[in-house]
Amino acid sequence: MINPTAAMLVIGDEILSGRTQDTNTHHIAGELTAQGIDLLEVRVVPDDTGAIISAVQKLANGHTHLFTSGGIGPTHDDITADAVAAAFGAPIDVRADARALLEAHYATTGTEINEARLRMARIPEGAELIENPISAAPGFSLKNVHVMAGVPMIFQAMVASLLPRLSGGTPLLSQTLRLMQAEGVIAKPLGVLAKRYPKLSFGSYPFYTDDTYGTNIVGRGADAEMLATAMTELAALFPARPR
Amino acid sequence: MINPTAAMLVIGDEILSGRTQDTNTHHIAGELTAQGIDLLEVRVVPDDTGAIISAVQKLANGHTHLFTSGGIGPTHDDITADAVAAAFGAPIDVRADARALLEAHYATTGTEINEARLRMARIPEGAELIENPISAAPGFSLKNVHVMAGVPMIFQAMVASLLPRLSGGTPLLSQTLRLMQAEGVIAKPLGVLAKRYPKLSFGSYPFYTDDTYGTNIVGRGADAEMLATAMTELAALFPARPR
Repeated sequence: MINPTAAMLVIGDEILSGRTQDTNTHHIAGELTAQGIDLLEVRVVPDDTGAIISAVQKLANGHTHLFTSGGIGPTHDDITADAVAAAFGAPIDVRADARALLEAHYATTGTEINEARLRMARIPEGAELIENPISAAPGFSLKNVHVMAGVPMIFQAMVASLLPRLSGGTPLLSQTLRLMQAEGVIAKPLGVLAKRYPKLSFGSYPFYTDDTYGTNIVGRGADAEMLATAMTELAALFPARPR
Repeated sequence: MINPTAAMLVIGDEILSGRTQDTNTHHIAGELTAQGIDLLEVRVVPDDTGAIISAVQKLANGHTHLFTSGGIGPTHDDITADAVAAAFGAPIDVRADARALLEAHYATTGTEINEARLRMARIPEGAELIENPISAAPGFSLKNVHVMAGVPMIFQAMVASLLPRLSGGTPLLSQTLRLMQAEGVIAKPLGVLAKRYPKLSFGSYPFYTDDTYGTNIVGRGADAEMLATAMTELAALFPARPR
């Protein structure tokens, strides 16, 4: 079985200017891996309608799912919903179901639902809402594009609402071997082992600690038994040394 | 004057699987903004030669500069140098200048320079080396593509070596106004102000703290005086309220 594939599109000038560190990609990457959906590409684009439309069309076409974060609030720079609708030629307007969610939420806090807030009820025709248990304003899924908020707490809550709906595949398993040896020592035997296990992939991640070089070797694959065998073989090649 | 533009390409399965949080993009984004180089796009791709070549060709063609991070170590999954060479049809082999750097470094530590470590001296013909003051193995610039390491400490050192070489533009200035009001209240007057200052851009970033909604309004632009005037006007629209 081949796993579904995914792309992530992060929308926001604040990421590209260095003001804000994107953490939503890291969050969804872990969740998708656990569910057997292979994240194959990430892009970050500015708050620019043309850039969003072009990225949405390209990525939605190339993957089973496209997830987006950012640009669905009440202010003038929140243009994601309209851009995603435009990418599919779908009509978009304030939708009764989304408006009802906002009205119910603001009624509890005695807050006025003004024109700006109503922007958050703009949902393309044919889209399914994604629940926002934190501040009510929903995300939505239009075809295979899942549009979510940029604020990490809300993004994470929306991901939790959405993912159980999506079919997964075989979760990618991983196992890490931490070696207090430099990458240059490990490279050759690791390369030989990697060739013998073409169904697994091996990543090598050097680190420095207390003035000593070390390397984390991460084996990845869908077959738990094969992975365990390979990692055991690898560990036997590098017995712990006295330091 | 129009600023030079840039794209960033992050290479690595470990980012897409959720194992590692990419922080290199955030680092270079801030440095580029300060130097007046506009970062307009970021992509993350796996350790896959075809995916790297395709992204390099697309992004190098669309921007003044392309920066890459990841995949230039000694192990079998380090394929970035060869992929970037292939993207330009440039020959690549172990180069004497890079080899000399490694030999000098390993001589000081009494470490053997084996076949795997020599991979790190593979540099495309015509490329200029980027200094690595931490572990010697250099990055390189081939035409407008700047290839750097993935380990954040080394990436940051390489960025510091490289950026003074590149021509900058007008630095993008920014000023933040922190308001203890919900985005929905601010949205309309902010939109009106933004229309009056088309040369500036305004982002609105909501937050929650102590059960209260607040919003950071970030104004951005190259003209310091215009920015200060606009932000003062904005602040006057929202006098501090007793809480």
